Order: sequence, then structure tokens, then C-alpha cells
Amino acid sequence: MSGKIFPTAQDAENAFYQALERCDLDGMMAVWAEDEDIVCVHPAGARLTGQDQVRGSWAKLFAAGPGARLRIEQQVAIGGMMLAVHSVFETFSMPGKAEPQPAPIVATNVYLRTAAGWRMIVHHASPAPAQPPAAARDAAPKILH
Amino acid sequence: MSGKIFPTAQDAENAFYQALERCDLDGMMAVWAEDEDIVCVHPAGARLTGQDQVRGSWAKLFAAGPGARLRIEQQVAIGGMMLAVHSVFETFSMPGKAEPQPAPIVATNVYLRTAAGWRMIVHHASPAPAQPPAAARDAAPKILH
Repeated sequence: MSGKIFPTAQDAENAFYQALERCDLDGMMAVWAEDEDIVCVHPAGARLTGQDQVRGSWAKLFAAGPGARLRIEQQVAIGGMMLAVHSVFETFSMPGKAEPQPAPIVATNVYLRTAAGWRMIVHHASPAPAQPPAAARDAAPKILH
Repeated sequence: MSGKIFPTAQDAENAFYQALERCDLDGMMAVWAEDEDIVCVHPAGARLTGQDQVRGSWAKLFAAGPGARLRIEQQVAIGGMMLAVHSVFETFSMPGKAEPQPAPIVATNVYLRTAAGWRMIVHHASPAPAQPPAAARDAAPKILH
């Protein structure tokens, strides 16, 4: 489907979020493994499996065209030789629009090293509470006295 | 924390869901890797990282004690040498209670092969629409005429 090679899982993730921000369907599908066992869960959506369901869902989501800015942060990454797992927060914002902006999304992304470089095999996204406590362990412990 | 050894990712998953059904906190934490980069997202919950946050969340969830039956199905599994990823539907039911039962949960579970056997490193669960179309690809194609 695409000859694009991603040398690392991070390269695949960067391409995934670039395609998501640009509503670029070909760019999006170039990131996914050509495998019927790929899994995609959009926020509050059904579990989609296989190229047809996954492509169809992105086509629908991208129909409105680009506009939102996307910020990716607080990545937790676990990497193996063949599989890599990234947990991130996705925050969409609409430039020029007043607050409140949409709440963040928490996403689990899994990448597989294939003969054609690293490709996405799982994207599981769900709405996160508005104030994620994810950075709490970086903060100094609270001392009450 | 625990000397329990899971020889495969599936063994770890079986122990995870057994502990979940039984509200067994020690059994649950025996499945998780002893690593500060573990990630747990409960349905509609915040992203939790590290042993303390993860244990605390299960302790709270288990406080009411067992009662619900849990059915795990439609597993999609991708396994590597060091990491394995399972996508499943979790369906809770309350024996003796009339319908409607709770809607299914879709979960992405990631396991890491550690020196102490396979352990969970990511559990990302979110509510799924009541009628998951996940088995659609097994069905014969619809022909309209």
C-alpha cells in the first residue's frame, strides 16, 4: 500500500500524529501495518479491526478536513526489539476559538517492527479527565504539617 | 513484591482477570511489573503510572468486594519475544440481576517478559458501544441484490 519506511517506532508515531493533524488519509494508512490483526479504538468508539474498518473510520473522521492543532505530551515509552508501546496524551485545540478547549485524550499506541520498518498495530484512545494527574510522580511529595 | 512466575503472557492475563473477578489485590499486583513505567487507564479514568497509583486504584475498585462475573472474549493477540499485546472485550454481569447488564469494556493489555516471567505493563480499558462490531470481519460479506 505504501513504500514509506519508518526506522523507529518514534518515527512512525510522529508520522501518525502528523497525518492525524493534517487529516491526511494516505499518510495515516502508511503508518499502519498491513495486517488484519490491527486494532483501533477511537474515543468512545467501537473496536475496529483490519485495514478496511480502520481506513474507513479515519476517512470519516478526516472528512471535515484539518483545522485543529494537536499537542502530544507526557509520553511513557516501552520498547522491545519487535514491539514498542507508547502512552501519550493528545490535546486538540482550535486556534482562534475561545476556551474551553476539548479535554485531553489518553492513547496507547503499539508499534511492530515489520519487514517494511516500524508500523502501528494498535491505537486505543479514550477521553481523559480534564486534569490528568499523570505528572504527579514528577512533583515533589506533598508534606502536610 | 511477589514470587509468582507467569511462563506466558496468557498466563499473566488469566491471573489478571481472575484477580479482577475475585477483587484480589495481592493477586492483581502480582501480575504487574515492578516498574515505575507501568500504565493503567480504568474506564473513563485518568492515566495512572507507577506501582503506588496503580495499586491504590485497584484497592479502591476492590473495596466493595467480589460479586460480578467477568467474561473475556474476542481476543486479538500479537506476541513478540519481549512484549505481547492483547485486545479483549470484558463483559461484567451481576448474577441474579435482571437485564440490562453493564455494557462491555474494550481493553488493551500489554505484557513484558521480565526476569520474573511475564508481567503486565499496560492496561487501558474504556467503555465500548453496547454492540461491538468486532466480529464483523469473520462474517460473510453482505451481498445486496
